[in-house]
Amino acid sequence: MAETPTALVLNGPNLNLLGTRQPAIYGRESLADIEKACRRRAEALKLGLEFRQSNHEGELIDWVQGARGRMAGIVINPAGYGHSSVALLDALVASDLPVIEVHLSNIFRREAFRHHSYVSAAALGVICGLGPRGYLLALDALADIIAVKKDA
Amino acid sequence: MAETPTALVLNGPNLNLLGTRQPAIYGRESLADIEKACRRRAEALKLGLEFRQSNHEGELIDWVQGARGRMAGIVINPAGYGHSSVALLDALVASDLPVIEVHLSNIFRREAFRHHSYVSAAALGVICGLGPRGYLLALDALADIIAVKKDA
Amino acid sequence: MAETPTALVLNGPNLNLLGTRQPAIYGRESLADIEKACRRRAEALKLGLEFRQSNHEGELIDWVQGARGRMAGIVINPAGYGHSSVALLDALVASDLPVIEVHLSNIFRREAFRHHSYVSAAALGVICGLGPRGYLLALDALADIIAVKKDA
Amino acid sequence: MAETPTALVLNGPNLNLLGTRQPAIYGRESLADIEKACRRRAEALKLGLEFRQSNHEGELIDWVQGARGRMAGIVINPAGYGHSSVALLDALVASDLPVIEVHLSNIFRREAFRHHSYVSAAALGVICGLGPRGYLLALDALADIIAVKKDA
Amino acid sequence: MAETPTALVLNGPNLNLLGTRQPAIYGRESLADIEKACRRRAEALKLGLEFRQSNHEGELIDWVQGARGRMAGIVINPAGYGHSSVALLDALVASDLPVIEVHLSNIFRREAFRHHSYVSAAALGVICGLGPRGYLLALDALADIIAVKKDA
Amino acid sequence: MAETPTALVLNGPNLNLLGTRQPAIYGRESLADIEKACRRRAEALKLGLEFRQSNHEGELIDWVQGARGRMAGIVINPAGYGHSSVALLDALVASDLPVIEVHLSNIFRREAFRHHSYVSAAALGVICGLGPRGYLLALDALADIIAVKKDA
Amino acid sequence: MAETPTALVLNGPNLNLLGTRQPAIYGRESLADIEKACRRRAEALKLGLEFRQSNHEGELIDWVQGARGRMAGIVINPAGYGHSSVALLDALVASDLPVIEVHLSNIFRREAFRHHSYVSAAALGVICGLGPRGYLLALDALADIIAVKKDA
Amino acid sequence: MAETPTALVLNGPNLNLLGTRQPAIYGRESLADIEKACRRRAEALKLGLEFRQSNHEGELIDWVQGARGRMAGIVINPAGYGHSSVALLDALVASDLPVIEVHLSNIFRREAFRHHSYVSAAALGVICGLGPRGYLLALDALADIIAVKKDA
Amino acid sequence: MAETPTALVLNGPNLNLLGTRQPAIYGRESLADIEKACRRRAEALKLGLEFRQSNHEGELIDWVQGARGRMAGIVINPAGYGHSSVALLDALVASDLPVIEVHLSNIFRREAFRHHSYVSAAALGVICGLGPRGYLLALDALADIIAVKKDA
Amino acid sequence: MAETPTALVLNGPNLNLLGTRQPAIYGRESLADIEKACRRRAEALKLGLEFRQSNHEGELIDWVQGARGRMAGIVINPAGYGHSSVALLDALVASDLPVIEVHLSNIFRREAFRHHSYVSAAALGVICGLGPRGYLLALDALADIIAVKKDA
Amino acid sequence: MAETPTALVLNGPNLNLLGTRQPAIYGRESLADIEKACRRRAEALKLGLEFRQSNHEGELIDWVQGARGRMAGIVINPAGYGHSSVALLDALVASDLPVIEVHLSNIFRREAFRHHSYVSAAALGVICGLGPRGYLLALDALADIIAVKKDA
Amino acid sequence: MAETPTALVLNGPNLNLLGTRQPAIYGRESLADIEKACRRRAEALKLGLEFRQSNHEGELIDWVQGARGRMAGIVINPAGYGHSSVALLDALVASDLPVIEVHLSNIFRREAFRHHSYVSAAALGVICGLGPRGYLLALDALADIIAVKKDA
Repeated sequence: MAETPTALVLNGPNLNLLGTRQPAIYGRESLADIEKACRRRAEALKLGLEFRQSNHEGELIDWVQGARGRMAGIVINPAGYGHSSVALLDALVASDLPVIEVHLSNIFRREAFRHHSYVSAAALGVICGLGPRGYLLALDALADIIAVKKDA
Repeated sequence: MAETPTALVLNGPNLNLLGTRQPAIYGRESLADIEKACRRRAEALKLGLEFRQSNHEGELIDWVQGARGRMAGIVINPAGYGHSSVALLDALVASDLPVIEVHLSNIFRREAFRHHSYVSAAALGVICGLGPRGYLLALDALADIIAVKKDA
Repeated sequence: MAETPTALVLNGPNLNLLGTRQPAIYGRESLADIEKACRRRAEALKLGLEFRQSNHEGELIDWVQGARGRMAGIVINPAGYGHSSVALLDALVASDLPVIEVHLSNIFRREAFRHHSYVSAAALGVICGLGPRGYLLALDALADIIAVKKDA
Repeated sequence: MAETPTALVLNGPNLNLLGTRQPAIYGRESLADIEKACRRRAEALKLGLEFRQSNHEGELIDWVQGARGRMAGIVINPAGYGHSSVALLDALVASDLPVIEVHLSNIFRREAFRHHSYVSAAALGVICGLGPRGYLLALDALADIIAVKKDA
Repeated sequence: MAETPTALVLNGPNLNLLGTRQPAIYGRESLADIEKACRRRAEALKLGLEFRQSNHEGELIDWVQGARGRMAGIVINPAGYGHSSVALLDALVASDLPVIEVHLSNIFRREAFRHHSYVSAAALGVICGLGPRGYLLALDALADIIAVKKDA
Repeated sequence: MAETPTALVLNGPNLNLLGTRQPAIYGRESLADIEKACRRRAEALKLGLEFRQSNHEGELIDWVQGARGRMAGIVINPAGYGHSSVALLDALVASDLPVIEVHLSNIFRREAFRHHSYVSAAALGVICGLGPRGYLLALDALADIIAVKKDA
Repeated sequence: MAETPTALVLNGPNLNLLGTRQPAIYGRESLADIEKACRRRAEALKLGLEFRQSNHEGELIDWVQGARGRMAGIVINPAGYGHSSVALLDALVASDLPVIEVHLSNIFRREAFRHHSYVSAAALGVICGLGPRGYLLALDALADIIAVKKDA
Repeated sequence: MAETPTALVLNGPNLNLLGTRQPAIYGRESLADIEKACRRRAEALKLGLEFRQSNHEGELIDWVQGARGRMAGIVINPAGYGHSSVALLDALVASDLPVIEVHLSNIFRREAFRHHSYVSAAALGVICGLGPRGYLLALDALADIIAVKKDA
Repeated sequence: MAETPTALVLNGPNLNLLGTRQPAIYGRESLADIEKACRRRAEALKLGLEFRQSNHEGELIDWVQGARGRMAGIVINPAGYGHSSVALLDALVASDLPVIEVHLSNIFRREAFRHHSYVSAAALGVICGLGPRGYLLALDALADIIAVKKDA
Repeated sequence: MAETPTALVLNGPNLNLLGTRQPAIYGRESLADIEKACRRRAEALKLGLEFRQSNHEGELIDWVQGARGRMAGIVINPAGYGHSSVALLDALVASDLPVIEVHLSNIFRREAFRHHSYVSAAALGVICGLGPRGYLLALDALADIIAVKKDA
Repeated sequence: MAETPTALVLNGPNLNLLGTRQPAIYGRESLADIEKACRRRAEALKLGLEFRQSNHEGELIDWVQGARGRMAGIVINPAGYGHSSVALLDALVASDLPVIEVHLSNIFRREAFRHHSYVSAAALGVICGLGPRGYLLALDALADIIAVKKDA
Repeated sequence: MAETPTALVLNGPNLNLLGTRQPAIYGRESLADIEKACRRRAEALKLGLEFRQSNHEGELIDWVQGARGRMAGIVINPAGYGHSSVALLDALVASDLPVIEVHLSNIFRREAFRHHSYVSAAALGVICGLGPRGYLLALDALADIIAVKKDA
């Protein structure tokens, strides 16, 4: 692992539309706003940060695979792919990295098909319903976990 | 929106094989034939037309996203992705455009897993089982809906 | 079959209330308005038209039986009976006629028990969510199908 | 009860089409043929016979209600209503008569929704898949049951 | 609405048999007894009363449709049709009237298929298991509700 | 049993909040208002009344147990415990008393998990959706039932 | 096939106890009584008869296999194995013989697990609930079917 | 609301055993350790703090009710009651307070019955699998939410 | 652990009513009778005994928690809470004690919701349907298990 | 029944392998060890004993049938056949003997398909998870039950 | 284990009919043909071979038990018993041998009840749909696995 | 088809990680090792070979489409996409080529969601649980099938 541990923040399909897409559910901050806030928080936590978004399941899998041995942990908002992608689950498990799943909305108050996420089975923890601040809390938690691992 | 409102006609996986693939179910017209018929009908309806096909879920999502604010409506035959893609549903909802779902075959007379389409929850209407003419009927309906909206 | 092929348009329970019943779901046009529009379209398509409504399942079945050998096709909006009537399904199958099912609202965006229609298993195609224009599109499709059959 | 005990044979929706409707499933005998055969058999069994058919659930219920105290037993082919009608079940139970359910086809080899009949819960016995001769076997059984009751 | 508000009391299939049908479940009072008791109570409540029974789903729907704008509310014991009729549910919703559903027996202590009634989704309230007095309690409640509406 | 028969009215969790809690669902009357109305009605019916509320499942069970042989009947609004408590069901069955279940809202128009109440299996009857007047109707019914029992 | 066509009547587990086992459900006739009645009926129908019972699933399968090409048809009361044995179903299908399934009791009025029989999928017809006379009716039907086949 | 907004941290059944109970799942910190950490964090966030634990569902409900109008928000680890308590859900909804649900372990990687929590339907957000730090993140989020509300 | 190992016998809701409650299901012995028999058996087995009953889920959990490190094992008849309490399951697992679950009646011959007990997942063994002697058999088994553990 | 009442102890498939088969689940005692322990216990209880094992469902059924009127009760460990055999259930019910079901392991902590046993519906009681001592406890209970029956 | 490791090839019910039974599904080779091909392949692989078929579940279990410690592995085509036999699963697990399951047809393209095989949970691998060559591929794989084990 | 028939071996998501990813489940051979072994085997079988892997569902579909008329058959390990991709199923069916599905692990011994593969409905046969040798067995089978087809 590099000197400064780096967190990979992955964003699934349609998250590039944040700020304009159904603001009643997803809020008014854009993904660029969230990235900026994440960068500030990562800096404070002395973490490097890679922040990416894709609408392509395969590209997300490629990025998860690329993180192995190079990143210190993954924060992932799988969006719609969380509910259908066994392949993404498999990639995350194979990464051997600490994973934290984030959803902007509280998926348990929405349609029944959103209550289940395959990704959860690969995650240490799940944060949902807390909007963009969920990303920051996930980074806080990840920093802790990485620190504990380094000490062990 | 541009002077001439334009309809985006999207075709999901394997529809590029039309005409040769299981003609007993999908008929003998090729996708090019359908495109030609759509162009003729769009012209008659004074609609612009973009007609696309992809086997890639992510690409279909990209195209739906690109339609927002640029197109007047979407006709989509999601093919296999209709039955599994929450991400496509989310993209269509986020587009804020009128959407009409088309299936060539009557999906309710086929395997049980084809009876449910996530896309239907984002569509104004659904047309299935009427073969290539389903596209034309969808364009007819879309033209009406766009006209009503303009008047409103 | 008579010189001029005739289409039977059947309307199930409560459709006689159209225009006043839950306009947010079913629109503001009355059934008489729909009949008028259908007659205009049938004339344009050179189709005869019988247009009927009943709240009685048995009467709808009687009418379907009476269509056999006398009509060229059926457009049916089964309304509530679509979700519960095996007997109506059996009558439609026994008619040996091309059947197109129409629903004014998009039944896939309503309560779960409305997502399944027995009638779909007897229909060539299904059109839903497009309001009264769904009837016209169904007549268009039926005219095509009848023409193809005559040619065959 | 009258001197000569009488059996009511009830036929549900679409059975008036027998002989022409899907002969691969339902055979080539008409309902009139079946009635004739039933009359011959009833005569041999010294049973009176009423033989009726209706496409109307309510009319079938009226007839079942009318049988109470006037008929000696009921043979019923509920056709499509067997799969959906709690009201018919209730009428048969309320009749306090021996009931035998008949289906021409073997409903257990057809679509899953045909495997369950509400009527079965009101019937002494069920005969299915034996075609028109199922009616005759039902009359044979009914004659036996009536004879036993008279002796008791 | 007429000077004296009128309640429509509707009775579904087989309720005409009350008093003789399975008295252990449905009690020994006839439907005429119940009607008499309802008339006395309506008079005391200064309500007009129409009291009807039918074994025909379509006739019940016709009557519900006829109540719109003419009656002040509906008390309905749907009997067997409660468990299967989406069409009756739709009619009740379309009536825009206060509806109270009554069952003589406690349907939750009987077969599982009796635990669900489509009609409940159209009713303000449900009363079951209290025998014929359930009708009277329903009229009491309806009188209250009508009074409140008039005051509003 | 005491000279004057007494009814126990039990109220489950959160009913102490009535009047302030979600008034759109539960109305604006407080539990004290309901108690007052119940006392008036009990007096008119010549019934004694005990009226209690608890948020504790065990306390509700204690009270049901204490009613045996001392009370003439129970009116219970189990609120949230109706949907989960087998123990409360068992206590009510063991009480050997007539039980009437009341819900203020029509539980069949709310979330699916509210459609089933264990308590219903121990109740003679169920009244729901009629607001606070449901308690009064339940007392009316209970008075009748107690009178019938005394006469028997 | 031999000169005189022969029917194989197979009886599954516990049917050797008939007459003593739960007579309220299974009646008071012993299996020997049923065999005697079957022999008389077979003679009248000019059918040979083999009548067997086993508690062993494998033995029943052996017998079914042995019937192929040697017997003219099978009447089988599979008893408990009907509900669990795919192997018996496979044997019956492989026999290429007309099969009629018989149950003494009406299995649709008993526990839910008795409502489904694998054997039904291999049977031409099913007779249940008519007691020992079900065997005789099955032989009548089989004689007819064999005669028809010979004529064909 | 008081000058300093106060957060109520509620802990459900068996959480008093933390540190000794199944440390592989729940970690080695005691509930007192967690309380201490929460107090430090609350102080930093300028929040008051009430921190409670109970094994009694009714007591937890009492506390939630007591928070209304007195507290600024609730952090709740419902433990076992999350999976079964509609009553707790109802109390939380009635409190009209922002609620954050916390689970120490990732409930989505444990037995299926732990995947569903009634409490989630009352929560703004859910944090699980992050151990004791989940409480701190919940306090962080709550402080934000309270600040936003004050500003609004 | 104390010199003499002690068994905790816990009884859930409504078991204080034994002897009077539904004797056809639960028998005629009172809980005091069972306690007496348990004390005699414990003495013979050289076990100490604590014997308790509560209608309160929380109190049962408190008692299970209090047993840890102080008792040698638990015999629990969870009654109604067995079917709904994840919290009780968690407490029993956390106790690190051998647990034997007892039910007086055979729960597998009663309503379907009684077939599943959460407590079973925390128990070494389950005894049901043997009435009060089930407690004694559980104590016999517990004595054995404790002896084996001491030897180990 | 013979002078000395005799218990039949039946062991289902694979129990002949005890001691060597998956000792972590089934323990290290052989079936011969269990038989020896059962004989000692039976002698002490003044019961005769027949102890048998078979891998053949049909043979187990034969033995159960042979026990009727000759044995005083049955202890059965049905092993794998408990989960699939309706025929064994039927045989046990037909035996009219008290039956106690024993499983060595706690079937409720294993795969879901092991949670249900058809045999339980024929058993007075069930003992599971207590290893070989479960047989001895079952004999204890059976001796009691037989004694009670003799006294009655 | 013997010098030359031996494979046991077991065939379940109805496989003795191969070649004549439903050749469209099962092919035209007889079981003797398959045995011959297996012997040739075993010889080439330097494996001994025992090849058996039975219609009796118990006999198959006896043979699996007999293989323990005597055979080097098992190839089993459980046919119909795969879908219903927990006992066969238990025997295979108890054998402590490598097991490969073979089906001639692709069970995933047939009726739903054929999609699940209990045996799969005891097998290292499953081969289906490849006809008789599936046996040969299974022997190839088994030879490899045995060789690896010997080397280990 | 080309002179030398060529097999397309397709590998789904994450299979590029073989050798390092969860070796307890997937083994220690890399995908390059498997490719090498496949090439050796193909050469021996006189088959050409194309061997590909992609994490992108759309790319896999493109490759399947490209195989039509150019390849002689397909061996596919769909990995995670097998469990979710109707689109891949449709592509394989449209290819009109013999397809063999391979899984390295025995998917029937893993999580329930891995037990179902859409791809199986398009495959002639399925091989799972036999590790990398499953690919070789699939090539063996494919060579046979191609040879048979050429002969036909």
